[in-house]
Order: sequence, then C-alpha cells, then structure tokens
Amino acid sequence: MADERAPASERVTVKRFPQRAVYDRAAIDAILDEGLICHVGFTVDSQPFVIPTIYARDGDRLYFHGSQASRMLRALRGGIAVCVTVTLLDGLVLARSAFNHSMNYRSVVILGTAIEVADPAAKLAALKAISDHVIPGRWEEVRPPNHFELDGTTVLAVPIAEVSAKIRRGPPIDDEGDYGLPVWAGQLPLKLEVQAPIADPRLAPSIGVPGYIANYRRPRSG
Amino acid sequence: MADERAPASERVTVKRFPQRAVYDRAAIDAILDEGLICHVGFTVDSQPFVIPTIYARDGDRLYFHGSQASRMLRALRGGIAVCVTVTLLDGLVLARSAFNHSMNYRSVVILGTAIEVADPAAKLAALKAISDHVIPGRWEEVRPPNHFELDGTTVLAVPIAEVSAKIRRGPPIDDEGDYGLPVWAGQLPLKLEVQAPIADPRLAPSIGVPGYIANYRRPRSG
Repeated sequence: MADERAPASERVTVKRFPQRAVYDRAAIDAILDEGLICHVGFTVDSQPFVIPTIYARDGDRLYFHGSQASRMLRALRGGIAVCVTVTLLDGLVLARSAFNHSMNYRSVVILGTAIEVADPAAKLAALKAISDHVIPGRWEEVRPPNHFELDGTTVLAVPIAEVSAKIRRGPPIDDEGDYGLPVWAGQLPLKLEVQAPIADPRLAPSIGVPGYIANYRRPRSG
Repeated sequence: MADERAPASERVTVKRFPQRAVYDRAAIDAILDEGLICHVGFTVDSQPFVIPTIYARDGDRLYFHGSQASRMLRALRGGIAVCVTVTLLDGLVLARSAFNHSMNYRSVVILGTAIEVADPAAKLAALKAISDHVIPGRWEEVRPPNHFELDGTTVLAVPIAEVSAKIRRGPPIDDEGDYGLPVWAGQLPLKLEVQAPIADPRLAPSIGVPGYIANYRRPRSG
C-alpha cells in the first residue's frame, strides 16, 4: 500500500500509518467520485466547525454549495482556509487483541481556500456537476434553476492540489504472539446500499421509476 | 420536525432550515449511538483539519482515541477547541426541480474542548466503551491492552453539552407550480449494510463466527 509519490505538502503528509498513504491523483479522484458527502471544516473566531454537505469533483476542483443564509457559506465566502474530507467506510477489522482492531476505509483530505463561483454560467455548470455527481441523468429531466434560485445559492470551489488519501484494506494484523488465541478474527465488510425507491405521495401514478434510479449505484473506486 | 427546546448556545443554533433542528438529548444520543465514525475538526496555525475516527458516547461524554504519534491527538492534547460531527446518510431526495433536491440525513454537531483521559483505569474504561460502541461483545473475547499499548494510546473526551442535531426525513418538497411536471419524484433510501464476514486467512478453521458478528447490526435511531 505504501505510495512512493511525494505528498503535495508537509501538511497533507500522512504521519500515522504512512504505509496507508496515497498521493496518486487517480486513486484520490476515484474516492472523491464514489463519495456522496464531504465534511467541510472551517474556523470562525477560533472555533472549528465541521459541516456535512454534498459536493462534486470537476477536474482539479471540488465544488460544494449552499444557501446564502448558511453560516458556513457566509464564512467561507470571505476566503478562509478550509479542510474538505471525504470518508468511505468499508468495514470493521477484528483482531485477536483489542489494540489491533481497526477499520477498513478510504479517505481524502483536501486543504485549501474556497473561492466563490460568481459567474452565472460557471455557477450553473457547477450545480450541474453536483447533480451529475449525485444522480447522473437527473439534471436533464428536472426543471433547471430559475434566476431567483441561482441568486439564492452560493457555490464554492476548492482546488484539489494540497491533497492526500489514506486507505486501509484487508485482514487484521495481529502481534505474532496473538495468532494462537482462540478468537475469531477477520473483516466485517460494510457497504452503503441502495434500497427500493419510494415514490412521492403526490406523484402521478402514470409516472414510472426511471432507469437511472432503478439501477442507481455509486461508482466503485475499488 | 421543529424542536421547541432551546439550543445550548448561539453557536450550535441551526440557522439554515431551522425546522430540521433537534435539541433533544435523547434524539441526539440515538444518532451518536448509531454512528460508527465521527469527523473531528481542529485548527492548527489557522488551518482547519477534519479527520475521521471511531468514537463512543458514554453518558455526557464522547470519547475518541489514537496513537501518541497522531498529529490530531498531539494537537488536541493541548486543550484546543474541537468540533465533532456525526452524520448518518439516509437517502437521496428527488424533487421535480433541481433546486429542491435534497438528502435525508441525521447529523450531530458537538462544539467543545477535548480533554485527555490520563488515569489508566479511566482510559481502559474509555477504550472498552469505544469497543462496545463499535462491536458489543468483542471486548470480553479479545486480549486486553497491555501497559505498552495503553501507554501508546491517547484517549480524549469531549463533553456533550454544546450540541445540536439536524434531521431531514420524508419526501421532496416542491414548489406548488412544479407538482404537475411529468418527472418521477421521491426518495432513494440508502443504508449502511453489513456484508458476510470474511475470516482472517490465518484463522484456525475450527473457530466459527461468533453470534455478535453473525447478527451484527447498528442500533437504529429511527
């Protein structure tokens, strides 16, 4: 798992379990493209806040959005430092000792400064990117934002530059002396599964579930 | 959904979609008890960091832990402000307009200062609480931490006091004028599902899967 590539900065260098570090952009992008929500961290009056929100990757930029009324968006429009973290939880790792228990996961940490996407055409493109990220095919079917809705939405972009990923996969690693203990050990995989769609109570009965919903699944980064 | 209780502070008062705010401790605790990982936010040299980690709630305290070598733990031992966020993603909400798309989710935000749990007995109890939170029944079967492992682990506690939750459930809310659009609308529920356990390649074939693994599921807070 050790990645020979150089990290983008000291601040995104993985210190703990460096063998889990991944600095390869293709691997990082695959995690970002599979995830649905990120956690955005920012600091106001020395107090950090961590807020979950949807996002999309568009090339070397990560977009997220929110209402003009949102505390997060108002703070971030000032051009302050952010941390955007995307975490995919893949399973529980059960070792023979309490100490060697772990989780299998894939996570990405991006450090940077969010900038507002103010140009209306670029803003609309970013909103489409977020929609396409969450549900490909949806944007083409629904009513697009009108100018009141567009004006009421703030879109922010963070460059995907100072970034690293951390990945743990596979079985537990026990101390050699513990392998003889009579304890079950292994992995309990976890997966975010899609359930059957639930129609809106006000949906006309003649409107069926479209294929992009019936067959919905996240891209799998492996 | 609107919660008539008073929030603990202005900083944890939900501003955006206040009808989704929940200040009731039983509802907050249920979310914390269902979640597996939290995202811990802290600030070093004006740069926020957001790190995923496992945790446990023990009454009015939330514990998390890590290696002495961890950047997060070293920073937090200094007694700095943190934000701990737990997010459960319950589904995609598909409206007839792009603007009214949403997610169903339950999230908790805790603001506070982490303090180190230094007393060895309290530390061991906190590690057991984390183990019990993730996999009830596991602690009793495995080799407990020895004093080297205990010394190499830092445990932090954050009071669950300045806290709020935000919950969105149910169908999309469309503009009245959009309900007639010929577009499927509704919810696509998502659920973190447990897959079949995978035995460690070095597991003795005589050791079967224990019941607490075979029947593993998260408590459901509703």
